[in-house]
Amino acid sequence: MQIDVITIFPGMFPAILGTSILKRAQESGRLRVTMHDLRNYTHDKHRSVDDRPYGGGPGMVMRVEPIFEAVEDIRRRSCASHTRCSTLLMSPQGEPLSSPVAEQLAAIEHLILICGHYEGVDERVRDALADRSISIGDYVLTGGELPALVLIDCVARFIPGIIGHPQATDEESFKHGWLEYPQYTRPAVFRTMAVPEILVSGDHERVAEWRKLQSVAKTVASRPDLIHKNIKLSGE
Amino acid sequence: MQIDVITIFPGMFPAILGTSILKRAQESGRLRVTMHDLRNYTHDKHRSVDDRPYGGGPGMVMRVEPIFEAVEDIRRRSCASHTRCSTLLMSPQGEPLSSPVAEQLAAIEHLILICGHYEGVDERVRDALADRSISIGDYVLTGGELPALVLIDCVARFIPGIIGHPQATDEESFKHGWLEYPQYTRPAVFRTMAVPEILVSGDHERVAEWRKLQSVAKTVASRPDLIHKNIKLSGE
Repeated sequence: MQIDVITIFPGMFPAILGTSILKRAQESGRLRVTMHDLRNYTHDKHRSVDDRPYGGGPGMVMRVEPIFEAVEDIRRRSCASHTRCSTLLMSPQGEPLSSPVAEQLAAIEHLILICGHYEGVDERVRDALADRSISIGDYVLTGGELPALVLIDCVARFIPGIIGHPQATDEESFKHGWLEYPQYTRPAVFRTMAVPEILVSGDHERVAEWRKLQSVAKTVASRPDLIHKNIKLSGE
Repeated sequence: MQIDVITIFPGMFPAILGTSILKRAQESGRLRVTMHDLRNYTHDKHRSVDDRPYGGGPGMVMRVEPIFEAVEDIRRRSCASHTRCSTLLMSPQGEPLSSPVAEQLAAIEHLILICGHYEGVDERVRDALADRSISIGDYVLTGGELPALVLIDCVARFIPGIIGHPQATDEESFKHGWLEYPQYTRPAVFRTMAVPEILVSGDHERVAEWRKLQSVAKTVASRPDLIHKNIKLSGE
């Protein structure tokens, strides 16, 4: 899988991409991430990537021209005609990232990520250049770089061979729409807090039942909104 | 505002914290972020922070002892009795981060963030150490480091004096529960795509009306779930 990132801050990426699972994913050749400095696609003396918004208002808006030029250059150079290629705009107004969306994106061979900044990106990028726009949550950040990193990490976990124990991905939060059950490790008693007895019973069937129940109970208590998404009662 | 981060990968932070608004926030003295390597709170030869889960299953669980020790050490050294201090566990099972949650957290003088890893963190951390647990979205990541960075960025934007033009924070997505209206900058015509005529009309009142309508239309089209949250029809 090839991921190209268009950004005005390419220096934000290497330390994160060079750690843990993302590092191993790249070393194994299963993932390649390339950063492109948007300013290389400007032609004025100040290499300006932003300008004032039409209609007035505070802040600046990212210009349409360098972004089109960057995406078209990347597509020309590395979107082979036989590979699936998708251009994503990282934006708080986008479709919310979720495990199913990440799994879907992991099946695409080539992603181009556009990182916004300032008060936003000229709308013509969303209308005529990006295939989709993706949001990592209902909050506002300084730029699209952290969202791009979150998306890369999340998507990489679905590329076959990247997680050492695929069963882990299968059991984790959201895979089946429920929060994960509580986990414990040694010591069995820490200060006065003991691990639930059932987990040290050795009875695998009862452990499995307990975990399922805990997952549901935790979801009901903390995220009732997920229940609505996941359960259709008969008659609905 | 002081933010302490407990992590097994302190090297993931400086490049992001040293860029753009987070950099200026720290230089101005309004924000201080300190990373603490969790392995410094282990006492075995291998400095191990994880162990196998009770009850079986794939993956590893983060041990309770080093995390308690780290948080208690930070509290002892830097939670002055007159400041508000809150310990947050970054976890996909937590309360979803949102603009209102970030604004609330920005009012706390001292945050301690615990970054999870592996299959999760011993539940006793959530039960007896963390004040809250926070999720940045309904997806799973390799660790809590990116979520901690997202939280720091998002919270910092609400610290007075950090954003140059406070009006910008006020008008951006989610502040009032609506997606932001489309923004455009020069050129007025790019290829065949023209900026909406009303934005170049100079009629500020009509521009403001158009933007409000666009915000609502965009939210209806892309995020009908936000409408449910934001509008109470009479009789409901």
